[in-house]
Parts: sequence; structure tokens; C-alpha cells
Amino acid sequence: MSNPELPVVLGRARDAVTPALRAALDTLSAELQPMAAYHHGFAAADGSPTGGDGGKGFRPALAVLSAEAVGGRTEDGVPGAVAMELVHNFSLIHDDVIDNDTERRHRPTVWSLFGVGAAVIVGDALLVLAQQVVLDPAKVLGLGRAAADAGSAVSRVADATAAMIAGQALDMAFESEERVSVARCLEMEAGKTGALLGCAASIGAVLCGAPGGTVSALDRFGVELGLAYQAVDDLLGIWGDPATTGKPTFSDLRQHKKSLPVAAALEGGERGAEELAALLRRSELAEADLGRAAVLVEECGGRAVATEQAKLRLESALGALASASLLPGPASELVELANFVVERQF
Amino acid sequence: MSNPELPVVLGRARDAVTPALRAALDTLSAELQPMAAYHHGFAAADGSPTGGDGGKGFRPALAVLSAEAVGGRTEDGVPGAVAMELVHNFSLIHDDVIDNDTERRHRPTVWSLFGVGAAVIVGDALLVLAQQVVLDPAKVLGLGRAAADAGSAVSRVADATAAMIAGQALDMAFESEERVSVARCLEMEAGKTGALLGCAASIGAVLCGAPGGTVSALDRFGVELGLAYQAVDDLLGIWGDPATTGKPTFSDLRQHKKSLPVAAALEGGERGAEELAALLRRSELAEADLGRAAVLVEECGGRAVATEQAKLRLESALGALASASLLPGPASELVELANFVVERQF
Repeated sequence: MSNPELPVVLGRARDAVTPALRAALDTLSAELQPMAAYHHGFAAADGSPTGGDGGKGFRPALAVLSAEAVGGRTEDGVPGAVAMELVHNFSLIHDDVIDNDTERRHRPTVWSLFGVGAAVIVGDALLVLAQQVVLDPAKVLGLGRAAADAGSAVSRVADATAAMIAGQALDMAFESEERVSVARCLEMEAGKTGALLGCAASIGAVLCGAPGGTVSALDRFGVELGLAYQAVDDLLGIWGDPATTGKPTFSDLRQHKKSLPVAAALEGGERGAEELAALLRRSELAEADLGRAAVLVEECGGRAVATEQAKLRLESALGALASASLLPGPASELVELANFVVERQF
Repeated sequence: MSNPELPVVLGRARDAVTPALRAALDTLSAELQPMAAYHHGFAAADGSPTGGDGGKGFRPALAVLSAEAVGGRTEDGVPGAVAMELVHNFSLIHDDVIDNDTERRHRPTVWSLFGVGAAVIVGDALLVLAQQVVLDPAKVLGLGRAAADAGSAVSRVADATAAMIAGQALDMAFESEERVSVARCLEMEAGKTGALLGCAASIGAVLCGAPGGTVSALDRFGVELGLAYQAVDDLLGIWGDPATTGKPTFSDLRQHKKSLPVAAALEGGERGAEELAALLRRSELAEADLGRAAVLVEECGGRAVATEQAKLRLESALGALASASLLPGPASELVELANFVVERQF
């Protein structure tokens, strides 16, 4: 399937959020700001502006729509949108250190350009800035006063970030395990990817003082959508086109990642599972081994499980959304965005 | 001067705070908890308990006293005390990565034992846990409900953490600069050390809903005390006894740190300053060079400036404290603690 058309909300949210995100980064000290601007694509390595727009902005779009869906204005969701983008980018900068990745979005990663110490400290700075943006948008963004529910919003940001960190730690632990059950793999993905999307899909509503039931339904929508998104990511990590993904072929297999298709294939217990496990025990896999491993993952049902998971989680996300009392316009944009995210690139 | 007697508040605060700190760490996931417990000295590298009590606990004592000084109970200050300890330890774990330090408190650092990636993620986890402890002490610590002013307290924690991170980034930038002015050095130390002590010395009062003027005075007390503390630390970093400090002789000179005595000596502009600058340009200094550099720092007035700074900042801290309306018992314990911190080991 070709890529579906870009939902208009992505552009609309980017227009509303990018200036605020830039303003937030501009409050960082002179040592930190250039590295943060580089990572976000707003500046080149030498500090010169790039005219970058901050990327596709899937999380900010969710945050803005979640404000609009409960009757709030776009700008009511902006502090939450900026916070989500900052937490997401903090995690990317630190994950690149952890995974020793030298490239992201076809550019050198922060640590490979400025050093590991610099990447650690700039990631830390973004994490704290995310909290400040929600607690005091006037000071950081020059926007109006903090929402009445800023305390509740910042609690949700902290809880989602903690869950994301725990998920990342679990993912790191998987690297030294030979087999990972599908259940633990999904637990990891719910933390690493689901928690922050749940927060993004509900934080605008929280900032607008929406009722608890509506907030919970939006959070559930985001968590389930995150699991669908991650299942697609896991499929692309093995069978994605390098031209589209920007990663090498069989990327996740090269890195011995216990992603969902691999976990499911190994758990399947079929004959090929033993051969796959033996291949993955090798410290480095040759190109031919990678191709064989991908075939084995598919033969053992791993591809089918992940494909099914993406469909089921999307259905579940849309079910959660339908259970909430939302304004029809923004609700249908949330549906469009969810479908887009899951249908991309396969 | 020999070490003065340990203020009783340190033991009292430790008894109140350590169980809560342990409870907070126990909420971390199974992958993160053992590394966090190791860093805090509660567990050995293999996870077995050490009976450690969490260290001298200077920041928690400030936090607890700041609650008591405005008429609160010890336990009212505990969530703030735990948060300060968590933020402090997050920064130590990441600083050890940044500085490539293999030992802390005579034990291997987290990164040198578990790897850089593990140290990055466990530091991240402690930073977020600090926020959660203040926002929801019931969930994390099993203590009572969040204070009415939890939102204000968590804002102060975020602002102090951001200032600390900016100070650390400035300190890192100094490494590649040949000279650093005394003014910039003090700016760096106000961020790196002062901000968190200001937060520690006021957070208990914030959690008890104390008036703004009282909170500001306590914050000022902590910031000034932090600058006094750092001046002493800088003196010990050059002339401290390795048996007491646990660091090698001339430790800061070995690492080319632009600490206050060095900055003042280089800025003094006296004849020895050129020789000192030339020595510090060498990538590695021999033992004889280190001894000579220490003599030059002293001859150029760097030791006197830092000694004077410690005295002046302590006076200023005590002045700020005297300006606040505080209960006399806890206030005199704050004075005792401040004197102890500045008089240690010289």
C-alpha cells in the first residue's frame, strides 16, 4: 500500500506548536540551546538556522486535538504538545547514546557530533524543560497563565515519562536474554511507546479541565494507538524499505532486538524457531543470515502476529475513542490520524 | 582545624528520610531498582543489602528543618527531602558519565559497573521519581496526601534542577576555555551547587504553605550556603587530604577544572598567572607540575579568594536566615548545620 495522504491536522498542529517549541528551546542556556536546536532540526551543527519545521509532529497533533475535542482552543493544548515533543526528544537523544546509534533522520546523532557527556546533559535539560512548560507556560512560552489543572497535567507527564523509562530499561535487559515472551514484549512496548502516546492523546483535555472519564478514554486511545504504532514499527524494522525508513535493511535483526515479530516467532515453538534462535545467538549476522532470519520470523508466524496486533490495537484505540463524549470534528480528525499512523508505509 | 562534631539534625533527618527514600527507590522497575539501590549505597553490586544509611544527608536535613522552622512536622518535609536526595543522586550518576569518573565514595561508579547506557537510564529514572515523590507522596512513599502546595513545590524542584543542569553544562564548557573569569565561575557554581541547596532549604516551608517572604529568605540562605559549600569544596579539591576527601591529591588540577581558586589566580594577572596558565595548557600534568601549580594558585591569591568567599557567603547565608520569621529551635539547627558544612575539613 502506498502512503496515505497526510492528515491536515499535522500541518495545523505544526503551525501552532513549532513557534512555541522554538521559544521553549530558546530559554535554555547558551551552552545547551545550540545542541537542542540541532537535534530538533532547527539548526545545523555549526548553529546556523536550517528552516526546519520540527518534523512530522504526531504527538503534538494528538495533544492539540485532545484539547479541541473537549471544546478547548488549539492554544490550550500547546503547552502539553510542546511538553510531549520535549519528552520524546529527550528520550531519542538518550536512546541514541544507549544504542550507540550514530545517525538519526539521516543526520549525525547528538552524541556522535558533540560527545556522550553533551548528549546526556542536553537530554536532561529537555526532560526538565518539559515539566516547566506545563507548570509555567507564561514563563517559558510567553503564553497565558498555567492551566488550573497544571498540577494534574504535570503528574501525568511525570508518570508517562517514568513508564517510558522503565520500558526502555526493560528493552535494554531483553538484549541479553535469548527469548522474550510475547507478553513481556507487549509490556515493554506499552511502557516504551504506549505511555507517552496515552499522555499526548489526553494532556490537552487535562489542561482544559475535562472530566476524568473523558481523560481516561483519551489516554486509553493513545496507549492502544501506541501499541499499534509500535507493531507497525516492528514490522518496518525487519521488512521496511530502507529508502523510506532511513534505516538499513533488517535493521532490528542486525541489532538483535527482541521486537514483537521476533518474540512471537521464537515463542511459536515451531521447527524454525530453533534455527532462528541459533542465528540470533551469533554476535554478528552476515547479510545472508539476516535474510534467512527474516524468512524464519515470517515462517514461524511472527509477521502475522505483529500485523494482527497492529489491527487489533487500532480497533481497540478507536473503540476507546468512540466511548468518550467528544466534539465530532476533532474526534474524526483523531480517527483519521490514528488510521494514518497505522497504515503508513506498508 | 579538626572536623567539628556532627550536628544531631543529620542523624534525626536520616532516620526520618532514609525509609522514605528506600520506599521511593522500591517503586522503580525490577531492571532499575538494583542499580539505584547500589548507587545510594543500600545494596552491593550483586544486589545484596549493605545496611547503608544513605550517606550524610545534608540536603534532606535542610529540607526537614525548613518544614520544622515554619511550624510544620518533620514528616511534612520528608517528600521534599527525598526529592532533593533523588535529584542530587541523578546528577551524580550522570556527572560521573560526563567526567568519566570510575570511583565515587570509594566504590565503582554506576557506569563503570553497569555500563554507560545503564547509568544514563537510571539517572533519568531518579530525576522523574523526584517529581513524582513531590506530586504524589501517597502513591510513591505511602505517606499522606500531596501538600496543598505540591504544584508550587514541584515547580521549584524543576527550576532548581534546570539551573543545576545549566551550571553543569557551563562547567563542561569551561574545560575547553583557557581562562574563566571569577564572575562566570561564580555564576556556574550558583547554578551547579547553589540552586539545589536553595530548593532544599526552602522546599519544606513550601510544602507547609509558608508565606512567600519566608520561602524566599530560606531559598536565599540555601543558595548562599551552596556557594560557601562550593568554595570549601574547591579548596579541598586542591589542598584537601586524600585520606579525608577520598580523591587523589590536587584532584581538581589533574582534571584541569576551572574552579574558583584557579579562576581567581588566573584573573589576578600577577606574574605567576602566566606560568600557571602554561602549566594548565598541558594535557597531562606530572606530580611535580601539580605541586608547582598548587603553589602558583596560592601565590596568585586564588586560595585567599576562595577562603574569603566561603566566609562571606556563609555570613550572607546566615544574614538571609536571620531576616526570616522562623521558630527558634529549628532556626538554630539551621545555623549549626551551615557552620558545620563550611568548617568541615579545614
